[in-house]
Amino acid sequence: MAFLEELAAALGPAVSTDRSELDRVRTDRSGWTTPEVPLAVVRARSTEDVQALLRLASAAGVPVVPRGAGTGLAGGAVGTTGSVVLDLAGMDRVLEVDEDDETARVQPGVVTDDLAAVLAPRGLWWPPDPASRAISTVGGNIATNAGGLLCAKYGVTRESVLGLQVVLADGTLVRLGRGTVKGVTGFDLTALLIGSEGTLGVVVEATLKLRRTESRPVVTIGATFPDVRSAAAAAAAITASGLRCAALELMDAASCAAVDALVAAGEGPAGDVPALGGHGAFLLVQTDGGAAPQEAEQALALIAAAGGEGRVALDAAAGADLVALRRAAHPAFARLGEVLIEDVCVPRSRLPEMFDAVEAIGRRHGLPIPTIAHAGDGNLHPNIVIPASVPHAPGEIPDVVWAAGEELFRTAIALGGTLTGEHGVGVLKRRWIADELGEDVMALSRRVKAAFDPLGILNPGKVW
Amino acid sequence: MAFLEELAAALGPAVSTDRSELDRVRTDRSGWTTPEVPLAVVRARSTEDVQALLRLASAAGVPVVPRGAGTGLAGGAVGTTGSVVLDLAGMDRVLEVDEDDETARVQPGVVTDDLAAVLAPRGLWWPPDPASRAISTVGGNIATNAGGLLCAKYGVTRESVLGLQVVLADGTLVRLGRGTVKGVTGFDLTALLIGSEGTLGVVVEATLKLRRTESRPVVTIGATFPDVRSAAAAAAAITASGLRCAALELMDAASCAAVDALVAAGEGPAGDVPALGGHGAFLLVQTDGGAAPQEAEQALALIAAAGGEGRVALDAAAGADLVALRRAAHPAFARLGEVLIEDVCVPRSRLPEMFDAVEAIGRRHGLPIPTIAHAGDGNLHPNIVIPASVPHAPGEIPDVVWAAGEELFRTAIALGGTLTGEHGVGVLKRRWIADELGEDVMALSRRVKAAFDPLGILNPGKVW
Repeated sequence: MAFLEELAAALGPAVSTDRSELDRVRTDRSGWTTPEVPLAVVRARSTEDVQALLRLASAAGVPVVPRGAGTGLAGGAVGTTGSVVLDLAGMDRVLEVDEDDETARVQPGVVTDDLAAVLAPRGLWWPPDPASRAISTVGGNIATNAGGLLCAKYGVTRESVLGLQVVLADGTLVRLGRGTVKGVTGFDLTALLIGSEGTLGVVVEATLKLRRTESRPVVTIGATFPDVRSAAAAAAAITASGLRCAALELMDAASCAAVDALVAAGEGPAGDVPALGGHGAFLLVQTDGGAAPQEAEQALALIAAAGGEGRVALDAAAGADLVALRRAAHPAFARLGEVLIEDVCVPRSRLPEMFDAVEAIGRRHGLPIPTIAHAGDGNLHPNIVIPASVPHAPGEIPDVVWAAGEELFRTAIALGGTLTGEHGVGVLKRRWIADELGEDVMALSRRVKAAFDPLGILNPGKVW
Repeated sequence: MAFLEELAAALGPAVSTDRSELDRVRTDRSGWTTPEVPLAVVRARSTEDVQALLRLASAAGVPVVPRGAGTGLAGGAVGTTGSVVLDLAGMDRVLEVDEDDETARVQPGVVTDDLAAVLAPRGLWWPPDPASRAISTVGGNIATNAGGLLCAKYGVTRESVLGLQVVLADGTLVRLGRGTVKGVTGFDLTALLIGSEGTLGVVVEATLKLRRTESRPVVTIGATFPDVRSAAAAAAAITASGLRCAALELMDAASCAAVDALVAAGEGPAGDVPALGGHGAFLLVQTDGGAAPQEAEQALALIAAAGGEGRVALDAAAGADLVALRRAAHPAFARLGEVLIEDVCVPRSRLPEMFDAVEAIGRRHGLPIPTIAHAGDGNLHPNIVIPASVPHAPGEIPDVVWAAGEELFRTAIALGGTLTGEHGVGVLKRRWIADELGEDVMALSRRVKAAFDPLGILNPGKVW
């Protein structure tokens, strides 16, 4: 095929058509594998590689699927038939850290935790904190506008990116945004690119807005509750009191049981952690900054008033143990079977209703759905466990799971919420996007997409 | 003219072609008045009015200029020849305040301070804090992505808007964004609309993200310095220490002198305020939250180390007096003559260089340019005073002022900054936008504009 020959001539060993390499990019962390097989994988080493690929792809009308570490949960970066998967994981350098202006310039493939390791000795940090931070990349965080545990207080990825270098569909390199913390010259195309899931352009460099590490105390509270409603009420009371917690994380009874089983099996966090099994809910609260101890006192009083029992960790190690309990949720669920991690978000006041709905939906479909929530911003992750009794091919998601998923999405939207808080639409939620946006916004979005990518070669079949 | 007859038939008394009404919308707070005269003014009373106007305007190819309170500083909302000015100031209702979810739904014409007055008794506030807040509207804040004194800590307007209802150029009403604090379904068209200066659509409703008022202390420091460099160094040291000040405002010697003259004339703030005349600079620092007093202590030590002399106000009234000094800058400059308020932003570390450049540019052109800065985010407002000795017609900006302005803009861009931090491009900075964005981003932006407004009827001749 002429296109592949041209590609090999231009990019040499960066291009692979090995079946194992093609298979590697047919899936992500959703558990779903596409039946489609891409044409090739390009492991980009430089901006020039990206430009060369996109020029050739534009000329030939070949689709390009940008991909980072492949840790997405919505199939947004899986290779499709006839496409070239553009793997950016190798462009992983931290190009510059400016301590005075609290900015960093990085390539898209740098792993979020690796960036943190570069920044920490300089007393700086980058707020986005997805649960996948040990394995996901900054470029992936940007593509999905990642959130995480800290975003109720510190914002999502959008709030921590000042500028981007982006290769457009035709290979043109553009610089969007700026290096200053403020600026309103022209449209906010940086914000438009963030969360666009590879459908508008390929991010090849980002200027990140950092924060200075505070040496002041972080206080962590782990609290158990008789039921999820009272835990949700405590979370609501904490928010309503004006406290701005760094983290406010809620786990339901099924999540508590799963984590407890993980701990009992010797695979849980090693520290001195409370037993969660048998409790109706676990609430993790973290306060930070100069008033952290007083704020924790206030939170503790509100927890007690809501019927919870709290344990306070004043030192970092004990706090980390409590956080580890929350971070153990995903490995704990994985022990129950294959899991589809969902990601709805509702107005904070509707959290108890949404928890009730998740329970009812699980019961109706005979599916365990342990659920954890970023309670500070109304973002729930119902984890639909696929029982061994439901037959399905590896990498396939059975219909009963989608039936439950559809009810989750429709309930969230009916409560004034959204079908994805932070994971993105990708392939897996494409069926429901029009329900949320409506046809006029869909049409407008397609026109915006065409303004960036008139030939429709960037990640086609995803999102829209 | 058939179009005006149709408009009158559809909108009745909302339409005016009175010359005084047309003249009212030929200017804004920049001091500049366009020589052009619009066709008509429509004072919209409802979303339906806006839709009706845009349907007719689209059919007839008539330009529409959205306008709020007319307090802009870049000519972005002045009526142009053949256009209809769409005055949204009358759509000024606060539709809903949700205390649990900390959101408000408002119409675009509500004045920012009026919204604050509705929110305060409920223990809520909306962070955008432009100096014009007593006279500017929420819709105008959205159109320019307004910043203000508090945005280094609390973000610009974009960070405090969750969703928008927007009438598109063809009259279609779309709902963008959502009511939840997180969500990544589809493109972030809400962020794209914010700061688009009326060129993409007409905002008819906004869902705002509020914060809860903290009853905890606010501490204010007013400090004088021998020169602006040492004040800038103190501001840099405060930021570098990791302190997140609510406000960090810097005034240069010329600004201090102007404010002092205002106070001496009996037109300044009434409270017990320090004399600023003769000082090289004034720095206003505000800390808030639970650790405010300790943070203020830290800031004070850094101020002293940089050669400044600080006065601390622990109670609200004394703090308000110090803030009033900063807020008196604009009336103080107005006493010196006609003023063009500029608005460049540079990386924080380049503030001292930019202050030096402003002084040199003023000297070179024989123009007083008292300058104030939001030091926490590198945003300077050089105020170019037009001396009485320079002849010019009322509403006209003389060439020498633009010559100085051009040097300011080019210097800011060369320092890694931007030609507008928060006021927008409008008409007055259109000449320089391509210098900052480059031709490829200009072309991309025009394609995005066309995706929203294929006929180019929305605020043509502005920004792009």
